[in-house]
Amino acid sequence: MKAIILSVGDELALGQTVDTNSAWLSRQLSAVGVDVVAHATVRDDQPAIERAIRDAAARCDLLLISGGIGPTDDDLTRQALAAVLHEPLEPSQPWLEHLQEFFQKLDRPMPPRNRVQAMIPRGAVMMFNHAGTAAGIDVVFQSGDLKSSCRIFAMPGVPAEMKAMFAAAVLPQVSAAGGGAAIVSRTLHTFGLGESAVNDRLGALMDRARNPLVGTTVSNGMVSVRVTARFPSVDQASAELEQTSESVRAALGELVWGQDEQTLPQVLAELMQQPGRRVTVATAESCTGGLLAKLLTDRAGSSAHFHTGWVTYSNAAKHDRLGISENLINVYGAVSEQVVEAMAANARRLANAAYALAISGIAGPGGGSATKPVGTVCIALAERVPGEKQNSVVQKRTFLFPGDREMVRERSATMALTMLRFRLLDKPLPF
Amino acid sequence: MKAIILSVGDELALGQTVDTNSAWLSRQLSAVGVDVVAHATVRDDQPAIERAIRDAAARCDLLLISGGIGPTDDDLTRQALAAVLHEPLEPSQPWLEHLQEFFQKLDRPMPPRNRVQAMIPRGAVMMFNHAGTAAGIDVVFQSGDLKSSCRIFAMPGVPAEMKAMFAAAVLPQVSAAGGGAAIVSRTLHTFGLGESAVNDRLGALMDRARNPLVGTTVSNGMVSVRVTARFPSVDQASAELEQTSESVRAALGELVWGQDEQTLPQVLAELMQQPGRRVTVATAESCTGGLLAKLLTDRAGSSAHFHTGWVTYSNAAKHDRLGISENLINVYGAVSEQVVEAMAANARRLANAAYALAISGIAGPGGGSATKPVGTVCIALAERVPGEKQNSVVQKRTFLFPGDREMVRERSATMALTMLRFRLLDKPLPF
Repeated sequence: MKAIILSVGDELALGQTVDTNSAWLSRQLSAVGVDVVAHATVRDDQPAIERAIRDAAARCDLLLISGGIGPTDDDLTRQALAAVLHEPLEPSQPWLEHLQEFFQKLDRPMPPRNRVQAMIPRGAVMMFNHAGTAAGIDVVFQSGDLKSSCRIFAMPGVPAEMKAMFAAAVLPQVSAAGGGAAIVSRTLHTFGLGESAVNDRLGALMDRARNPLVGTTVSNGMVSVRVTARFPSVDQASAELEQTSESVRAALGELVWGQDEQTLPQVLAELMQQPGRRVTVATAESCTGGLLAKLLTDRAGSSAHFHTGWVTYSNAAKHDRLGISENLINVYGAVSEQVVEAMAANARRLANAAYALAISGIAGPGGGSATKPVGTVCIALAERVPGEKQNSVVQKRTFLFPGDREMVRERSATMALTMLRFRLLDKPLPF
Repeated sequence: MKAIILSVGDELALGQTVDTNSAWLSRQLSAVGVDVVAHATVRDDQPAIERAIRDAAARCDLLLISGGIGPTDDDLTRQALAAVLHEPLEPSQPWLEHLQEFFQKLDRPMPPRNRVQAMIPRGAVMMFNHAGTAAGIDVVFQSGDLKSSCRIFAMPGVPAEMKAMFAAAVLPQVSAAGGGAAIVSRTLHTFGLGESAVNDRLGALMDRARNPLVGTTVSNGMVSVRVTARFPSVDQASAELEQTSESVRAALGELVWGQDEQTLPQVLAELMQQPGRRVTVATAESCTGGLLAKLLTDRAGSSAHFHTGWVTYSNAAKHDRLGISENLINVYGAVSEQVVEAMAANARRLANAAYALAISGIAGPGGGSATKPVGTVCIALAERVPGEKQNSVVQKRTFLFPGDREMVRERSATMALTMLRFRLLDKPLPF
């Protein structure tokens, strides 16, 4: 099955927004054996959208459209689709009712212009939007001579809405119709080593002629290893994928913290909530300014392992909130293993948590010195001494992270999570 | 002048790499008055590249191609271009010599496969690559009836090489041929009203035939208004942009918090640091889990206005850290205006800050009830009573935010920042 992905929007064609939807959709389609042959992007211009739909439909079996179904006058995808199909736009009653309920709950009247978001071409199927107000459209376009047809799915441009709609309404249909060769892939995530060090460990697994193919990508300091298997059957592809994934895990050991959609905070939460363990962690942050606590509470149910965090950005706050003596800060500096050790120990004791993580660093761009350049970050992990409420054992480390302020902050928080992960695995940090 | 941007590469069509070249090129072309009407992406497949070139050339005056001119067998752009032009590929002597020198300097023989990177269609002009081994191609494609022509520039896909070549060899040609038309744009950011409400306020400004053109986009609950002016001269375009931007600001008032690359925390930081004001804000967060503090410390220099934040995720933490009585929580619930009022007042007093923001809400997906559904968020802003250290005036509000956990948390933090912004502007919240 051949597919084309069409993105609609002035902001995309003019380059004000980078289109990430098309790449995401391509990966999803490839994973179920659909062959994406092209992407196209057009502006919010009805004749251009119509031509793009006609051109694409003539060349593929599956056309995914994202964008142009918002409530405003520059959203023209549904009108273009109706014109190409030679069908009138009609309201989808279920979606109209859903919209009315939605606005009722918000306790405001439905703006008249939202009504257009329930319009779909006659004969089309409405796709439910679990994250927004625009209904999607699922329709078959037949060529004039009736010799060929193209299934068209029109989705919102907002990535979260598009992804939810794709997963719920498009993927099941496409998978069922897929047949043929199967491409399956898995991504294993690591943190702590650079891309070339990871490549060195993978060695011959990285051979470009290999099937399953193994490649690495880097994002926010995380090196991810993508394994892609392409075989005649899903069973064979899955079995081969499994085997190569095991080889990758064997080469990288505990550096692999998770796979695919898993996040490090989520993996950590599961470790903390293991039966018989059920521990909590407190946080004391300086340069990360709350990012570590934010990551620890990204998922629902975080209250099982996280109760208390401090953001002590100034020295006075470190003293007033966590009892860090001015003398300690004066002697060693706010960015020092001595200070983060005290922050972690005191935060753990005050919060009465099993663990506490403390971070203090120089995120930049200013504030660096010869001995503590920008990117210098001290992290401490305090742990309750068994049977003693007050006392902690603390491990501490100093890192030098590359990158800009945002990257240094992200890597600092990720490293703190990583230190706790290795502690819970009862393994030393492997770097 | 109308332009189309064509990207060539399996990694792009299959979604393994997000195409950032097209957006970058669009912005460069828009800045010199070229109208980018579409992007297209095709795989490393010669017939597909040929068709894409023919299709695009028939619809525009300028076609920029990136990708497919590397040294390997799957690099087929130059072959496709030669086929479309009906011209043979011939080596560019200057580039061949350059390549040989290049490899001599590296002290290794030139791999035979690199020779293809010096091949260009007969009659085309070679474009120098200052950052790699592939020569670019500059050529005019004439339609069969000679009635129209399209200038084609083929560049490398590696962003650094493409950008250097574009700046050196493409931009000067395009600017000269542009005929002076200039497109300038600006984006004004708002928060607090939905897209349709913003559209209603903008009214006739949203007319699709208008120049400057006004359009809206939504990201993370922020509605942004983009104004694009297209006029013969940069001066005129800038003046018209200014005038329409003023009309947009007049229609939206203080809802507009900033423009272009500005961020809300940055705008807020500037307000807090105005001469003669220099105030600080403390934070007390429940459902946002540190996100508000993180936003307030995103930029360097945050220590001027932010010293202390609490993440009191559990009821016990609210009691132990901020002195919120168990009784208050039992009577009104942790998500209540009474509790956030106390959190804000106590946080402000403990941190001795001019202001404090407190957030408590139900971010979901679980935890909702009939009276407090998921998305219910209470936010309070405490302010020092002039001349009194201990006492605060507190304003508080309850919101119902749509979306998933992440969206609810982002909107909550953004709304807290917005409440402080309006307070510093000495204006009531306009919603």
